[in-house]
Amino acid sequence: MSDIVLHGYWRSGTSYRTRIALALKGLDYDYRAVDLRAGEQHGETYRALQPQGLVPAMEVGGDVLVQSPAIIEYLEERWPEPALLPTGPVDRAAVRGMAAIIGCDVHPLGNLRILKYLTGELGQPPESVRSWVNRWIGDGFAALETLIAKHGGAFAFGDRPGLVECYLLPQVYSAARFQTDLSPFPKLMAVAERALADERIAAAHPDRQPDADGETK
Amino acid sequence: MSDIVLHGYWRSGTSYRTRIALALKGLDYDYRAVDLRAGEQHGETYRALQPQGLVPAMEVGGDVLVQSPAIIEYLEERWPEPALLPTGPVDRAAVRGMAAIIGCDVHPLGNLRILKYLTGELGQPPESVRSWVNRWIGDGFAALETLIAKHGGAFAFGDRPGLVECYLLPQVYSAARFQTDLSPFPKLMAVAERALADERIAAAHPDRQPDADGETK
Repeated sequence: MSDIVLHGYWRSGTSYRTRIALALKGLDYDYRAVDLRAGEQHGETYRALQPQGLVPAMEVGGDVLVQSPAIIEYLEERWPEPALLPTGPVDRAAVRGMAAIIGCDVHPLGNLRILKYLTGELGQPPESVRSWVNRWIGDGFAALETLIAKHGGAFAFGDRPGLVECYLLPQVYSAARFQTDLSPFPKLMAVAERALADERIAAAHPDRQPDADGETK
Repeated sequence: MSDIVLHGYWRSGTSYRTRIALALKGLDYDYRAVDLRAGEQHGETYRALQPQGLVPAMEVGGDVLVQSPAIIEYLEERWPEPALLPTGPVDRAAVRGMAAIIGCDVHPLGNLRILKYLTGELGQPPESVRSWVNRWIGDGFAALETLIAKHGGAFAFGDRPGLVECYLLPQVYSAARFQTDLSPFPKLMAVAERALADERIAAAHPDRQPDADGETK
């Protein structure tokens, strides 16, 4: 049994993001699936860990950490090597900025509770929900394509996978579910494909989690 | 003329957030207003700085930094005192987690481009847009109220204003514009009022920026 327990859901982008960070750090952890479709995240037990009722949450020692950006920064501070961030402050800001484009301006608009609200409260049909998601993915990926051209090498920043890949791969996975046209983003997609070929990263994929059910995406 | 140039807009929450961080650090900067209503953010000049066409962007030395979470972490690394984050990794994760609740799960759903999409592409009436914004502010603030009860003192985490206040005050300002019912969040509001009484923080308020036009909110 590991000192780290990750509460997550196979297909949640923020859970996937955290799994990649743990994998790149080479950290073992126990995975506890929270069944989002059954509403387990809204139960008292889970909300005592995470008051928003959102995944992931990470237990370490006796502490509970919430919010994947905070969890990943914690992993970086606590286990600095291999590093997810480069060394100099300006480079670190560039990497954090690229991650935040996804973390703040793309992912939040396409997660489960938002899609449910669009479909439910706002009565939007599936094609309208798909246009919504694709608009924000497209805008964010266009900016990332420019920044990868500026900072990238084999990966989004330089020649090692790191923080940007943690955020990027789950968003590419989500884009595939929504049939986003990814042809305008060749550099971004080359980075994503290269990252997915890394066995550590591949093991964090949704389809390889114990709670993956293999249903049609 | 300062070494730091902040490109922002008086009423933008992420610009306001960045101004608070600069103010708490006691850093001077030149403020360049980007007129979001006139679409200046979409022009070639601004997009060369910030490829998303979003504010803020910060120039420092010859570098351009984007995304307020990345800019604020940069300020913390470059000018560590006074600190916006506490010392231990678990405490730092708690503070970053509280900030991310607003940065990732509240603010992104209520910014200008999203409201325009709801009104325009999705044809939603004003009351529907208000319900949308209030739903996400309410969910996020409820979780923060719980976490402030756990970690807070005079401020959201302990007895000094820091990273959480950078994120919290702009969101409270936005909530006032949308007439969110804030009565369920007494601890959060007490923190916000105490922070606004700090003259450094007060000087970062939208109404005190050179591009504020005093129009009805």
